Order: sequence, then structure tokens, then C-alpha cells
Amino acid sequence: MKKLPDKKIPQGFFFSVTEAAIKKPGRKDFALIFSEVESAIAGTFTTNRVKAAPVQLCIKKIASGRGQAIIINSGNANACTGKQGAKDARDIVAVASKQLGIGIGLTYICSTGVIGTPMPMQRILPTIGHLAGGLGNASFDDVAGAIMTTDTFPKITSRRIKIQGKQGVIAGICKGAGMIAPNMATMLCFILTDIAVEKKTLHAALKSAVGKSFNRITIDGDTSTNDTALIMANGMLDNKPVTKNSSEFPAFQKALDELTYELSRLIVKDGEGATKLVEVVVKNAKTEKDAQRAAMAIANSSLVKTAIYGNDANWGRIMAAVGYSGIIFNQEKADVYFNKVKVVKNGIMNKKDREATEEMKKKELKITVDLHAGKASVKVLTCDLTEDYIRINAEYRT
Amino acid sequence: MKKLPDKKIPQGFFFSVTEAAIKKPGRKDFALIFSEVESAIAGTFTTNRVKAAPVQLCIKKIASGRGQAIIINSGNANACTGKQGAKDARDIVAVASKQLGIGIGLTYICSTGVIGTPMPMQRILPTIGHLAGGLGNASFDDVAGAIMTTDTFPKITSRRIKIQGKQGVIAGICKGAGMIAPNMATMLCFILTDIAVEKKTLHAALKSAVGKSFNRITIDGDTSTNDTALIMANGMLDNKPVTKNSSEFPAFQKALDELTYELSRLIVKDGEGATKLVEVVVKNAKTEKDAQRAAMAIANSSLVKTAIYGNDANWGRIMAAVGYSGIIFNQEKADVYFNKVKVVKNGIMNKKDREATEEMKKKELKITVDLHAGKASVKVLTCDLTEDYIRINAEYRT
Repeated sequence: MKKLPDKKIPQGFFFSVTEAAIKKPGRKDFALIFSEVESAIAGTFTTNRVKAAPVQLCIKKIASGRGQAIIINSGNANACTGKQGAKDARDIVAVASKQLGIGIGLTYICSTGVIGTPMPMQRILPTIGHLAGGLGNASFDDVAGAIMTTDTFPKITSRRIKIQGKQGVIAGICKGAGMIAPNMATMLCFILTDIAVEKKTLHAALKSAVGKSFNRITIDGDTSTNDTALIMANGMLDNKPVTKNSSEFPAFQKALDELTYELSRLIVKDGEGATKLVEVVVKNAKTEKDAQRAAMAIANSSLVKTAIYGNDANWGRIMAAVGYSGIIFNQEKADVYFNKVKVVKNGIMNKKDREATEEMKKKELKITVDLHAGKASVKVLTCDLTEDYIRINAEYRT
Repeated sequence: MKKLPDKKIPQGFFFSVTEAAIKKPGRKDFALIFSEVESAIAGTFTTNRVKAAPVQLCIKKIASGRGQAIIINSGNANACTGKQGAKDARDIVAVASKQLGIGIGLTYICSTGVIGTPMPMQRILPTIGHLAGGLGNASFDDVAGAIMTTDTFPKITSRRIKIQGKQGVIAGICKGAGMIAPNMATMLCFILTDIAVEKKTLHAALKSAVGKSFNRITIDGDTSTNDTALIMANGMLDNKPVTKNSSEFPAFQKALDELTYELSRLIVKDGEGATKLVEVVVKNAKTEKDAQRAAMAIANSSLVKTAIYGNDANWGRIMAAVGYSGIIFNQEKADVYFNKVKVVKNGIMNKKDREATEEMKKKELKITVDLHAGKASVKVLTCDLTEDYIRINAEYRT
């Protein structure tokens, strides 16, 4: 019984997509999100020291906490493109702002795709007018499609919340697929809401939600130069702005947490070449940091991920990963589960290999490591590592 | 013009191999190294917190700095096997020592293979007598063969050094293939020499050599529970023991460095599924630690390794890896080379993609990142990531 994703769109947002043939012709690779009124905006960005030009530009802009438009391209990351890349990003923003009739400071830009190739400005610039003129002709779904790179399906979801008696909406899209790792990924995420939210509160809520979702997924351990998550709150619901102290805040945070978690789950599900979705839970760790380190070590281990692909209940590789994660723990107290089957009890095998092998054959697998060392728990999402991952990434550019 | 490896064996060492059918029948999987006289011995061991039973036992024994025999099995790592595993390791040592007529403290034990499965003691114990009785019937080469797991060829080399007018020999074997990562690997390495070396000097020389060889190779970023490098110096050359202050020490260290480097190179060459040997050099970094972190980030990146496999001169992934390595550097000063082709100049593309693609097709590739930030330089060895790595590791246990 598959539930279709809720695709309700908040009031006052308009969309447009077009083809700029940025990497190659044949698909819509250029998109615009526009709010009919100026909005509060917040963002989180890659921790990679090598930041793409659009990321550097967004980081400067977001200090104002105000925005109205986001222009996005796939096919070229505009990363490692030097001064020319920075100028190209500024030029796109300038032309788009002019076409939209808004201030330059209100237009944000995001790029994803190949690193190190100059932006094909001769094809991009003439297309911006078409993009701005087409606002309203496309859906949020279409934008989710236009920002895809090696993704195999668009990722969209939404939540409805009662705010002061009115129904507010939060909707989000994202792209991911490869290079997904701690502290985000070649991951772009755009969240829109018509709920009025005070600017500092919006930033804190996004940071918290991202910390528990996009920062806890990993496909291959690589962190991209372009990761960006933006949230725009245009206040069209006409509610009294939500602040940290509002009675509505917990509901807003919960909805945002759910939304980002669902989107991050879709990213892992669509991991390059993945055949299985894997939840790694490390529980009863001494600290949350310990739990996160151990869970990430397991989730990033090529040996664990290939064993999962091969339906091999090879828990030794899980113990080894916890062992080299850097945390201090007592191996003789550790239990390991594949779904509900306890394969390791007190650090040694529990003779449940046959039952565990049956669990491995399922499309979704939950690996739980119980350290019996404290009370902290962290869940990380990952996928298996397959020949298709190699093929996709060996052939991506050529 | 391939040079055959020098396989000279130091005086006074004897070898034996036999079949104990530890994982399955059909190959010699049990080996013994024996010195006719008591030797100085030193070792380095995995940094993984989860240490196999034989590793824990060796760490205790090595405090004495004395040894005479090493008993080694492949097919079972005796890791995550609890109190029973510890007892099994002790029992093997006890039986072997008795058969060899030496003290228990002089016999070391190493295991490699699957984690978490109890040692098949009913097959191992009766075989020890045969192993001890067969001393002299096998070569060091045969031992190199017996300790292999997913290795495709045995790894052996040696060096000769003039010491006080006499010709001393250092010979070494190792196994590797998968789970090779910083701070060693499922890597076993045994080095034998007839040169007398003072015990603290022997330990310091081994530690230094391992730091620049086995600790600077990576296949998949996983660190095993069993890594061990042991060196035995039996003094049969009858020289005055080499100490840190001896005039012969630099030559001894150099020979040991060369030997471990050659062995570590053979491990990478035989990386699971590898088709190419890759040297990653990060030079002109601010500190050696920075250089090591950046080089390891590149060498461990699945995206870099798949691009190399696909002959794709995708330098953007290299810049991204340096970016997330955690080091502080100025991207606008970084140059990147594939062999001698400069693909990145001052952080942006140098329009040499076609030339670089030609370099990618070679069996050995050198990636150099020049940070222009200082004087520190580190070289790390790795290999490409291929579909065969996935196949080998998805099917290893089943």
C-alpha cells in the first residue's frame, strides 16, 4: 500500500523551467522559483573548503535573510571556475533580477553538475528572459526534474500544518544521487512555505532539520562543492510570524524535520547504483557524537556496503568499522542486529546467520548496533555499493 | 625489462606450510616461521579498537622484545570470537611451542580471514605437529602463498646490506588485497633478518618504515582488526648489534624503508579488482599532516577512484576531495598534474584535458597536487575502484 507523496504547494510561489543545453541539449536544465512577495530566506551550505561560485554568492546574500527568487541549473556546477565563474554567477543573477523586476539582493543562484568547466554563458544568458517570462507555466515537480543530474526520479514532498486556525503548507524538492556524505552532498534542496516565520527562527529550524536528515545520509563519503539547502517563507498565509517561543513552533519544526527526513530518504533510495536502502542505528552510545561517528563509519564502509549488496550477513565488517571509527567502546558489550535478528551478542556471534541472510534479501535493511555504553542514539541512512555505482561514476563525464 | 624480485633469505630461518582446511580444503593455509636461535623481535599492530585475539596476544608478548617462531593461518581472522578466541590463540601457541621445544613467550601468532567465526580447532590442533615437523621443507615464498586471502599473487622481496664487512640480508613477505587503509590493513607482514639489531632500535626502525609505507597505502578506507607487521632479527650474521648511533644504522633503515615500500606497493598493485596503480602526491603543503590528510582524502575518494578506472581526467573530484579533507588551503594557488600534464593551474582548468586523458590510459598514474603553501610533501599509494572490487567483496564469504 504505497502512499503517494503529498504534493500540495504553498500559496504565492510560481515556477518555470526551460532548456539551456548547459551540458548537452535534450532536456530542461534551467529552472526558476519565484515568490510573488519578498520572503524570509535561510540556507545551509557545503562544509567543503572548495565552494562553488554560486555557493559563495549565496552565502553573502543570505546574511540579509531576505529573498524572492532562486535560479537553478543542472549540468554544470560552476565550481573551480575561478574569477570568471564568480562573474558568471553574478551576471546570471543580475540578468534574472532585471527580468523579474526585483533587487539583485533578492535573487539566489544554485548550480549542480560537472566541476571545473566554464559556464556556457552564450547559451545561458539568452535563455533567462524565456525562463522569467514562463513563470507559472511549470510546476514544482518540473523544477524537481530540471535540477536532476544522475538522479533517476524527481524528489518532492510536502506537509500541511494548522497555524492560528489556517492551513499552512511546507513543500520541498531536492536532488542528490551521488557524492552524498556527511555535511550534505551534491545535494540541492529547496523548501517553500507560505507560513510567516521570523528570520532567525527560520535559520535555526532549517539548521536543526538538516542536521538530523541531510547530514545523516551517505552514499559514498564524498562531500560536494555545491551543497545547498534553502528555505523561503513568504508569509502569504498571513499568520503572526512564528518565532522560537510561539506555541506553533514545535509543530513547524516537526513538519520541517519530517519533510527533510523524507527528502533525504529519497536521496538515499536513489543512491547511484543502489539496490537497497539501509538504516544504520547506533544506540546506547556514551555521547551523540560517538553514535554519529560509529554510524557514519559503518554507513561509509565499502566492505559493509558490498556485503549488503551480496546478501552476506557479514557482521564482522560492522564490528571492524565501529572499531576504527575512533570511539572508545567495550566490544564485549556490543550487540548487532540485522532488522530484528540479533547476529552479535556481547561482541561474538549469536549463531543466527541463516535467519540474518533471509533479512539481507529484503529491499530495506536496518542495522542496529547497541553499544550498552550510555543513552545516545543516532540513525544514518545509506545504501549498498554495487557495480552500477562504478559504471555510473566511471562514465559520468565522458 | 622486468627485474625479478631479490629473494635471498637470511641465515638461520626455516619455514613450513601445510593444509589445515581452515576455511575450506584444497590449499596450504597454515604456516610456520622459525629461527634456529632466539631473536630480537618488534611489531606494529592495527589501530582498530576491535583487535583480533592473536593481535591482542602478540601485543602482550612483544613487550619482551624476544621471539623465535611465528605461526600464521589464513581463512579465519579469529576476531570477534570472545574468550573462546583468546583461548584458541593461546592453545595454538602452547602446542606449537611444545612441538618446537621453545618457551611459550617466544612463539607469536597471526591470523587473517573471515571475522566472527570460531577457529576450527579440531582441524588446527592435530596439524601443528605436522607443521613443526616439516620445518625446512618449505620456502619463504611458500609462506607468502599460505597467508594469502583474496591476494592474487604472493608478495616477497629482500635487500642485502654490508654490515661490518659482512653481507646481511633483510627479507620480507606480506599479504593484503582488501581492507587496506590508513594505519595498516588486513595486512600481515613478516620481515626477517640475520643482522643483529638492538631491540629498541629494531622497534623504532620498523615503526618509521611502516609509517612511510603501509600507513600510506589505501585500497578502500577500511582498517582491519588483524593488521600486524613483525620483524625478527636473529643476529646470525654475528655483527655487533646495530643501534641508533651505529654508523650502519642509516643503511639498515634505508634498506628496511625500501623493503616495506616495495611490499606496500605490491599490496596496492594487487588491490581487490584494481586495474591501475595510483601514486597520489600532495606537495608544498603547510605541514606533513596537511599533506597526508589531503593525499588520503584523494586516495580514498570513491569518485576519484572510479574516474581513474573510467580513464576520465575528472580533476574536479580531486579538488573536491582536497576541499573536504579538512585542511586549510588557498584553492586559487593549487595546481594539479596527471603524470606530467598540468590539468589545473591556480585552481582552474588549464585546458589540457585531451593530453590528460591520454595519461589516464596508462597502467600507472601519478596524481600530484601542488598546494604552494609550504614545504611538506607526502606520497600515498592507491588503486582504482572497479566492478571487480564489488564482486569480490559481495561474494567473499558466501
